[in-house]
Amino acid sequence: MERIYLYDTTLRDGAQREGMSLSVEDKLRIAHKLDELGVPFIEGGWPGANPKDDQFFERLQSTRFKHSAVVPFCSTRRAKVRASEDAGLLKILAAKTEWITTFGKCWDLHVHESLRTSLEENLAMIEDTVSFFRTQDRRVIFDCEHWFDGYYKNPEYALAALRAAALAGAQWVVLCDTNGGMLPQQIRVSVEAVRDYCRDQGLEVHLGIHTHNDSETAVANSLAAVEAGVRMVHGTINGYGERCGNANLCALIPNLQLKMDYALIAPEQLARLTEVSHFVSEVANLAPNDHAAYVGASAFAHKGGIHVSAVQRNPQTYEHIVPESVGNRRRIVISDQAGLSNVLTKLTEMGFNFDRHDPAVGRILQQIKLLESEGYQFEAAEASFELLVRECLEIRQPLFSLEGLYTACQTFPDGSVRSEATVRVRVGEALQHTAADGNGPVSALDAALRKALVGCYPQVAGMHLVDYKVRILDSACGTSARTRVLVESSDGLGRWTTIGVSANIIEASCRAVTEGIEYGLSR
Amino acid sequence: MERIYLYDTTLRDGAQREGMSLSVEDKLRIAHKLDELGVPFIEGGWPGANPKDDQFFERLQSTRFKHSAVVPFCSTRRAKVRASEDAGLLKILAAKTEWITTFGKCWDLHVHESLRTSLEENLAMIEDTVSFFRTQDRRVIFDCEHWFDGYYKNPEYALAALRAAALAGAQWVVLCDTNGGMLPQQIRVSVEAVRDYCRDQGLEVHLGIHTHNDSETAVANSLAAVEAGVRMVHGTINGYGERCGNANLCALIPNLQLKMDYALIAPEQLARLTEVSHFVSEVANLAPNDHAAYVGASAFAHKGGIHVSAVQRNPQTYEHIVPESVGNRRRIVISDQAGLSNVLTKLTEMGFNFDRHDPAVGRILQQIKLLESEGYQFEAAEASFELLVRECLEIRQPLFSLEGLYTACQTFPDGSVRSEATVRVRVGEALQHTAADGNGPVSALDAALRKALVGCYPQVAGMHLVDYKVRILDSACGTSARTRVLVESSDGLGRWTTIGVSANIIEASCRAVTEGIEYGLSR
Repeated sequence: MERIYLYDTTLRDGAQREGMSLSVEDKLRIAHKLDELGVPFIEGGWPGANPKDDQFFERLQSTRFKHSAVVPFCSTRRAKVRASEDAGLLKILAAKTEWITTFGKCWDLHVHESLRTSLEENLAMIEDTVSFFRTQDRRVIFDCEHWFDGYYKNPEYALAALRAAALAGAQWVVLCDTNGGMLPQQIRVSVEAVRDYCRDQGLEVHLGIHTHNDSETAVANSLAAVEAGVRMVHGTINGYGERCGNANLCALIPNLQLKMDYALIAPEQLARLTEVSHFVSEVANLAPNDHAAYVGASAFAHKGGIHVSAVQRNPQTYEHIVPESVGNRRRIVISDQAGLSNVLTKLTEMGFNFDRHDPAVGRILQQIKLLESEGYQFEAAEASFELLVRECLEIRQPLFSLEGLYTACQTFPDGSVRSEATVRVRVGEALQHTAADGNGPVSALDAALRKALVGCYPQVAGMHLVDYKVRILDSACGTSARTRVLVESSDGLGRWTTIGVSANIIEASCRAVTEGIEYGLSR
Repeated sequence: MERIYLYDTTLRDGAQREGMSLSVEDKLRIAHKLDELGVPFIEGGWPGANPKDDQFFERLQSTRFKHSAVVPFCSTRRAKVRASEDAGLLKILAAKTEWITTFGKCWDLHVHESLRTSLEENLAMIEDTVSFFRTQDRRVIFDCEHWFDGYYKNPEYALAALRAAALAGAQWVVLCDTNGGMLPQQIRVSVEAVRDYCRDQGLEVHLGIHTHNDSETAVANSLAAVEAGVRMVHGTINGYGERCGNANLCALIPNLQLKMDYALIAPEQLARLTEVSHFVSEVANLAPNDHAAYVGASAFAHKGGIHVSAVQRNPQTYEHIVPESVGNRRRIVISDQAGLSNVLTKLTEMGFNFDRHDPAVGRILQQIKLLESEGYQFEAAEASFELLVRECLEIRQPLFSLEGLYTACQTFPDGSVRSEATVRVRVGEALQHTAADGNGPVSALDAALRKALVGCYPQVAGMHLVDYKVRILDSACGTSARTRVLVESSDGLGRWTTIGVSANIIEASCRAVTEGIEYGLSR
């Protein structure tokens, strides 16, 4: 199996995504995760461009990685300045890395419009920068910025720029589709031309590819480049990046390794891909894309009734790969389109054994349809689903009942805000009337509820909310729209999710929080 | 320019997406929008499979479309039943459409595992079904289900199934990658083989392609099929669909039309693509993907300082197409990575003219960075940004000030919930102390505020909230996480968005609502 070298740029190009902002600590955590995944190159940022990247590279000097080299990124030297006297390049050297990535203009238009210098000076800037880093014993990756636009507009100049980097000693030259507009066939033709050019000129340099997703073909563009001969692939976790994002490593890695038989990372590392994807979205505080190829929560979800019975007999019928090979899993989805077969599967997972003709199963299906028409969705709220099933089977234990709720939120003249909640909770014969403060009405309500229950159920002391998600349904009606709240609770051992829907956000939250506690107590 | 026929399946395959549910009314609205876009084929659903699809096709009989044929979708006849006696097929005829799409198994594994019938019977089912529809004067599109898996496992059988449909009179045979696992090269090889087979066998049938995104290459797979000779392309708006979705028409259409020079829809229809994308996500009540190719809000967003100055001199430097050709637009983004050049552009858009060295510009930048570190994001809240600028320039007019806020939410023994808010608002010398009810604390607050202001500012009577979005930041801390609220307001003439961030959702909402009213009054 031939090797492909992965080059992750989540921390640099990925962080350009609108709405994404990583702290130094975030960057370090992600770098360690990428090291565990076995990524050989991690582009860490641009020392000198901002204080965050300076600190990141400083912190790296006391950090050891097992599989990864962290690489700084920088432009070629400024025009009309010696490389050895360019303050920017000296800051890159100060990061003390083995590898350095530097990018240069390969499109004549950009030399004129963006650098505003001459074509000759730009070639000298490329050559000097690479040579300078080489004399300092660094290994160099040269990013050919705007390669494809440049190649199609002025191939002679583009090739001259690439040649300058290669002759100056760059180990890799990476062909970048900076504007992201190329289609796979255009990539293929240009990469083949470069491959032939390097052979004819005797240039001993390896080729890489760096694509963006502006035509929604970044992954396929990278695959076409590999087929045409490149051996380094740039990309980001979850395809994060400017505009429409970079090539998504979470799709590229399994495509190359499972379907095209290249060697990238060890199978046990590949089996952590879903975890890495979710970790990075958590750290970046971005909602994961449930519909992402390979790693999305829906990637191996089965909804239709016929699907479900066939996939259980033979997974190959409806699954393109074994979900576990990328750390994902098959999911049978509960929904009004589901039909009997899915509900039965779900019930079996919960430990119930029903015949498909049992009237209880019909009652459950009917109840799901009713609640879904009100905006409930049990796909992500399995604990609420389980309570609903127990309700329909008349085995739900009434552990407590909330008989009254009052929340208030007040601002004070000094600018402070206070939220409090009072609850009336009945446990058996006893009525608990308690009050608590919180950071907002929902945390106050959660605190008051647990205060009311802890006497009878000491285990609530070990339970807490870990996530709280709000979604406005029919949001075009403004604040009188219905609100769907998902609450994730934990008791330190496990996690479970409950749901509440109401026109009133407090009531919706109250239902989800109450069910979360009830489910935890019944575990 | 050669023609490619678009076939939209948003209403059928698209609606299989987890979390998506369309009413009959929703489906009709989307069908009309697709007609305006100029899509020749709209797959509407499966009459007989569920009451919703029955109603949809009933309603269609009194509906006229200008560009589109709405097509029902169904499986081939059941095993061991005459087509003319198959109740399912009779329901399809009852929809009275010119075209019918029927799908049949082309992978021997599925004949055994899913249909559980013989290979010969499956071929007969295909032939009978297509013939039956043809004798009823319908034109037939035959979907070769699991084409590619079938072709690579047992090409003879796959080709026999395709041949049965073609000889029975199908006008189109569509090669489906039902499990979505194929890569572009595999698609290309198989389509070329089919093309040659049809030519050698003298089959007069047109070829189509239907792909799914499980390898994140659905768009590129469709392009490869077009290059190999297909002339009908299936897909969905925004790529909605089961698991990882279907091929995304919002990327396929511009790729084929703007970059590969095929004729699909008129240029003025193409210029409505962004609108159609947003319309469908609104109707489906799914958040639009800001990072979508061509139609996403970030697709032509520029953040970095150098980018911004170059793209303003020559758009070609950083844009792969003219954004307006697909109805999108260039956006200059405000963010801590923005730098001076972006803020200056934004100020110019707002009608201010500042020199880049003006200390006011520095103050604005600093204030943005401070607020962004607290969780504010002005990218989507331009009205709040404008108020911030006025604040920094000391020209923000204090129209009113909120001196006190109290919200309460209470449940009653009959199960009802009441939310009310009281506000103390100072306008000049006068203090208004008002109260109002609402569907939840935020709508109560909005109502109380407007009640307090309407005496002094009668125009608030014409203003209302149109959208309310909540995002939990650092949501891993549960309900004590910070909450970011975006509020969209309207006065019937325009819309504007404001933002509030706080640990307390009520306080965050209050800031956004208050700024929304202030901005509306200052317009």
